[in-house]
Amino acid sequence: MPDAILDDISHRRFNPLRGSWVLVSPHRTKRPWQGQQEGASENVLPAYDPSCYLCPGNKRAQGDYNPKYDSTFVFVNDFAAVKEQQVDYESTSQSDSLESRLLRAEGTKGKCYVITFSPEHNLTLADMPAPTILPVIETWTKIYTSHLDLFSPLVKASGPTTYPPSAPNGSIIDQPTEQFRYMQIFENKGTAMGCSNPHPHGQIWTTTSLPEEPCIELQHLARYRHEHTGAHMLEDYAKLESEKGERTVFENSSFWAGCPWWGTWPFEVMVVSKSHKRALVDLDQKEKEDMAEVISETTRRYDNLFETSFPYSMGIHQAPLTGTDEEIECSHFHIHFYPPLLRSATVRKFLVGYEMMAEPQRDITPEQAAKRLRDCGGELYRKRLN
Amino acid sequence: MPDAILDDISHRRFNPLRGSWVLVSPHRTKRPWQGQQEGASENVLPAYDPSCYLCPGNKRAQGDYNPKYDSTFVFVNDFAAVKEQQVDYESTSQSDSLESRLLRAEGTKGKCYVITFSPEHNLTLADMPAPTILPVIETWTKIYTSHLDLFSPLVKASGPTTYPPSAPNGSIIDQPTEQFRYMQIFENKGTAMGCSNPHPHGQIWTTTSLPEEPCIELQHLARYRHEHTGAHMLEDYAKLESEKGERTVFENSSFWAGCPWWGTWPFEVMVVSKSHKRALVDLDQKEKEDMAEVISETTRRYDNLFETSFPYSMGIHQAPLTGTDEEIECSHFHIHFYPPLLRSATVRKFLVGYEMMAEPQRDITPEQAAKRLRDCGGELYRKRLN
Ligand SMILES: O=P(O)(O)O[C@H]1O[C@H](CO)[C@@H](O)[C@H](O)[C@H]1O
Ligand SMILES: O=P(O)(O)O[C@H]1O[C@H](CO)[C@@H](O)[C@H](O)[C@H]1O
Repeated sequence: MPDAILDDISHRRFNPLRGSWVLVSPHRTKRPWQGQQEGASENVLPAYDPSCYLCPGNKRAQGDYNPKYDSTFVFVNDFAAVKEQQVDYESTSQSDSLESRLLRAEGTKGKCYVITFSPEHNLTLADMPAPTILPVIETWTKIYTSHLDLFSPLVKASGPTTYPPSAPNGSIIDQPTEQFRYMQIFENKGTAMGCSNPHPHGQIWTTTSLPEEPCIELQHLARYRHEHTGAHMLEDYAKLESEKGERTVFENSSFWAGCPWWGTWPFEVMVVSKSHKRALVDLDQKEKEDMAEVISETTRRYDNLFETSFPYSMGIHQAPLTGTDEEIECSHFHIHFYPPLLRSATVRKFLVGYEMMAEPQRDITPEQAAKRLRDCGGELYRKRLN
Repeated sequence: MPDAILDDISHRRFNPLRGSWVLVSPHRTKRPWQGQQEGASENVLPAYDPSCYLCPGNKRAQGDYNPKYDSTFVFVNDFAAVKEQQVDYESTSQSDSLESRLLRAEGTKGKCYVITFSPEHNLTLADMPAPTILPVIETWTKIYTSHLDLFSPLVKASGPTTYPPSAPNGSIIDQPTEQFRYMQIFENKGTAMGCSNPHPHGQIWTTTSLPEEPCIELQHLARYRHEHTGAHMLEDYAKLESEKGERTVFENSSFWAGCPWWGTWPFEVMVVSKSHKRALVDLDQKEKEDMAEVISETTRRYDNLFETSFPYSMGIHQAPLTGTDEEIECSHFHIHFYPPLLRSATVRKFLVGYEMMAEPQRDITPEQAAKRLRDCGGELYRKRLN
């Protein structure tokens, strides 16, 4: 393989999805490492915790009680980062004053949901067999669908289900009072990722503005499509990676999961739908099952890697809730996993000084990381609780 | 003040230096916080640590001994992220193949230095009175100057000093074998920022490529200059902020230091030279003294805020070592401080899920943060060791 030289020299790799670069220093993996080898961690949490505000039947911060749910449960975040109701903001600065150039702001409305993945307090996605992850995917799809612009071409794709779909058992998904632009579905897992409650759950933040990252990606996806006569970047990418294999962690007929060529975090994984799917509503039953499998395979390998409950932030990028036909058509469903661990359950990679001021930097290459994750499939290292 | 409404609604602010947005949720500061109040931390380190690889006279990882230096000391990083000597990389992929579009890389050479700020193991910049910070600034200036492209307009600005300047006592700053494009000067302080050695020190990474962040800033600085008939964005910005005062933490005649309108980290501070200075070589003696004062005032207030040794990453952005006349002329010397703490010595802000997938988010506003930092000037809370 002619690219093998990249294993030994410092180089930069280009991320075509963001138009940005990452510095790779594979020779640094030869640094001496005197760190301890840690023993495998065990799951010591109870299946039900009376003080957890996410467990079924328990009381939440603002006094509401959770229903006795048996699968997923969705509610509006009690301390949301965006609000649905607020006064409008209009800047009072004179046009072309220094203020108008340099102190720019815009009001943003929105709504934040919390979604539990299971009633069991002591599970994680890694503990859950693929079929039990399916309801999570179905709930994400319902929330996404119920926030779609009625005129979006995606509404038709959402199929014969009545629109808007019914909310999962006991959940509160009201119709928004205003059309939101984007829905960010994500999960922060582990205290290293700022998550304070181990009960398996994710978040969904929906805003009137199109946030930075999906906006940057949409621009690059659209440009690729124009430059390459309608080709979809991530369809091309999944095909290329599936053929090459060296960055593949796991794949099935619908999804490729691997360490992307341009990954920043040591064990970063991207899950890409092999054919062009714009959003959750484009996935049929088989594809949802394949997605559950790929999430299960990825999170289980993560936990097996350092025999610990592996922290990460995970998020779904897909079509905006409302947008131009072009924006919706060039969107390509994918999932990012950004985990901070580098060498063991306690040794993490810091994206600090140089990374903040200049450019993200990594030591272990995506090819080395993918090989390690490929090689630690199979059973979960700890006793499954489910 | 008509903008007071921004204290109560969720909104986005625009960063004109990067062309990016940040989501601000001031109403979230009303969240209940049950965290402990922590006692003030004390400095318990010795002034000399025989096992520290940065203390004077001690042995380093690769076997070299540090000189018995008495101020700053510079050496080439024993485990550098970039190397000066390596084979060239040329991709072998066919032009317009999927590989050439999606698996792009380029070789990067460079050199990494470590610079100690003081021979005393138990000091930090916050402990050091401004006059003792001056040698650090002088050493940064020497290293920057000795790596300048001989044909850069900045060489003339470096004044009557012989070129290249002499290295500080005992330090190793060879002439690079190749012209580097950019020099990133930075400091990671504290274990929260991945810094494993408390001995006061910073790093300097120099590369043949122009890294992401300075590249993005240069583009925005250049555009502003074109759109506003030669005006310099950060000169305009320092003037505006100095007049407004509400985001000011400290200023003297040469520099404005404050919480920028678009800051991401809760107590992020930017230090901007009030008049247009392209790089360290443009600063005269008085301006260097003013810079030492502003660094001292900023780091001392940081430590006073939560009565702890405040972690941060700090970095200098300035003109590239070589570049077009336009690039060098639109550069504007400034310093970023990115500290992770939010509420106390142990409660930090996590830039995780939503921030990684969608957009940076903050709760406390820059105006609230600036007021708190303004109000905690004066003596260092703990006994000064110097
Ligand atoms: O070079 P150090 O101090 O070992 O390492 C630290 O700073 C580097 C530059 O910001 C980062 O890449 C590392 O992740 C961090 O741990
Ligand atoms: O909403 P949570 O779980 O309290 O908070 C966590 O996730 C948010 C969204 O990624 C971040 O803004 C917070 O910094 C983090 O601690």
